[in-house]
Amino acid sequence: MLDPRARDEILAFVAERDWAQFHSPGNLAKSIAIEAGELLECYQWDQDADPERVRSELADVLTYCVLLAERLGVDLSDIVLEKLEVSRRKYPVDKARGTSTRHDQL
Amino acid sequence: MLDPRARDEILAFVAERDWAQFHSPGNLAKSIAIEAGELLECYQWDQDADPERVRSELADVLTYCVLLAERLGVDLSDIVLEKLEVSRRKYPVDKARGTSTRHDQL
Amino acid sequence: MLDPRARDEILAFVAERDWAQFHSPGNLAKSIAIEAGELLECYQWDQDADPERVRSELADVLTYCVLLAERLGVDLSDIVLEKLEVSRRKYPVDKARGTSTRHDQL
Amino acid sequence: MLDPRARDEILAFVAERDWAQFHSPGNLAKSIAIEAGELLECYQWDQDADPERVRSELADVLTYCVLLAERLGVDLSDIVLEKLEVSRRKYPVDKARGTSTRHDQL
Repeated sequence: MLDPRARDEILAFVAERDWAQFHSPGNLAKSIAIEAGELLECYQWDQDADPERVRSELADVLTYCVLLAERLGVDLSDIVLEKLEVSRRKYPVDKARGTSTRHDQL
Repeated sequence: MLDPRARDEILAFVAERDWAQFHSPGNLAKSIAIEAGELLECYQWDQDADPERVRSELADVLTYCVLLAERLGVDLSDIVLEKLEVSRRKYPVDKARGTSTRHDQL
Repeated sequence: MLDPRARDEILAFVAERDWAQFHSPGNLAKSIAIEAGELLECYQWDQDADPERVRSELADVLTYCVLLAERLGVDLSDIVLEKLEVSRRKYPVDKARGTSTRHDQL
Repeated sequence: MLDPRARDEILAFVAERDWAQFHSPGNLAKSIAIEAGELLECYQWDQDADPERVRSELADVLTYCVLLAERLGVDLSDIVLEKLEVSRRKYPVDKARGTSTRHDQL
């Protein structure tokens, strides 16, 4: 999915602008929520979103995710794989198949 | 950042549960915003978030980003690099260095 | 807090534009989240938000809350009072006083 | 919509718990976004939300809106009416009628 070049370019972009000073974990979490709201705005009134705008907003969400992971010293692939382990236990295939019901109501 | 194995495991997890039927772009955009809210909750009252909870919520945001990218047929690294191009123009180093001012007020 | 005139003007504004057709509960819930993201953006990098912008974004959140309540046929004061009852039980004064700890960890 | 009793009970609830210390405007803006995410979760996969849960989450959004307005010394009805003035200019009836198009594309 994300190759190391994307991560390196994000970090260089921030370093050149001396922006790490603004990137406390709390500020990055806010930024992810703000950008997620802008992504959602693409789908506010209908499902037919402008593809260019969606790409741009999704990229913003991801960029802040990368920065938060860096700031916390976590590896994005690691945490995704870790969480999948948890989700496999919460949503066993035989119970969860074909339904969007939450695990605590399965 | 994200290696192909993380993406493949996400897609297998969804396929085994037959959940792609719920994953319209609009629903995935909602899901990203919902998970971003849960991530933000880790930092609601102080900056000292529980690292385990942060990892778990950040993983959820990312997982839905991966699913939205798949659904739209876009490559995450591509869109991040594309957006960096735009951001470099909006935030030239000499103007943006050391300030969190928005581009339209620089 | 909100007087009946504010509610009536919101409903007239929507009726004149024939916008109720877009205001499914799900779309209004998205709209609240989108506007909450814009409100949060006022505080993205520092606590010193522009008061005009905050007023405007907070008004947007509220307006969609009013529209959702109308759509669902609920009274805003009623649900606030109802929820306070629940919160009083979850956060008894002697345990919750002076701490931001969540009820399930009190 | 909201009667003064709802506001007074919210303020008493907070005062009894000595929670105003946590309610910086930035923290309240985060709280609104977090609760808006929980409200949106009611509509994550379908439009058929649990009415009890919706009432509860909508009440949470509103409660934090009331607290932010108090903290900033603004009146909720005033800002809603103020914003309607702006929106009437941005969305003139003859152009905006029956369409969900954004004002900058009308």
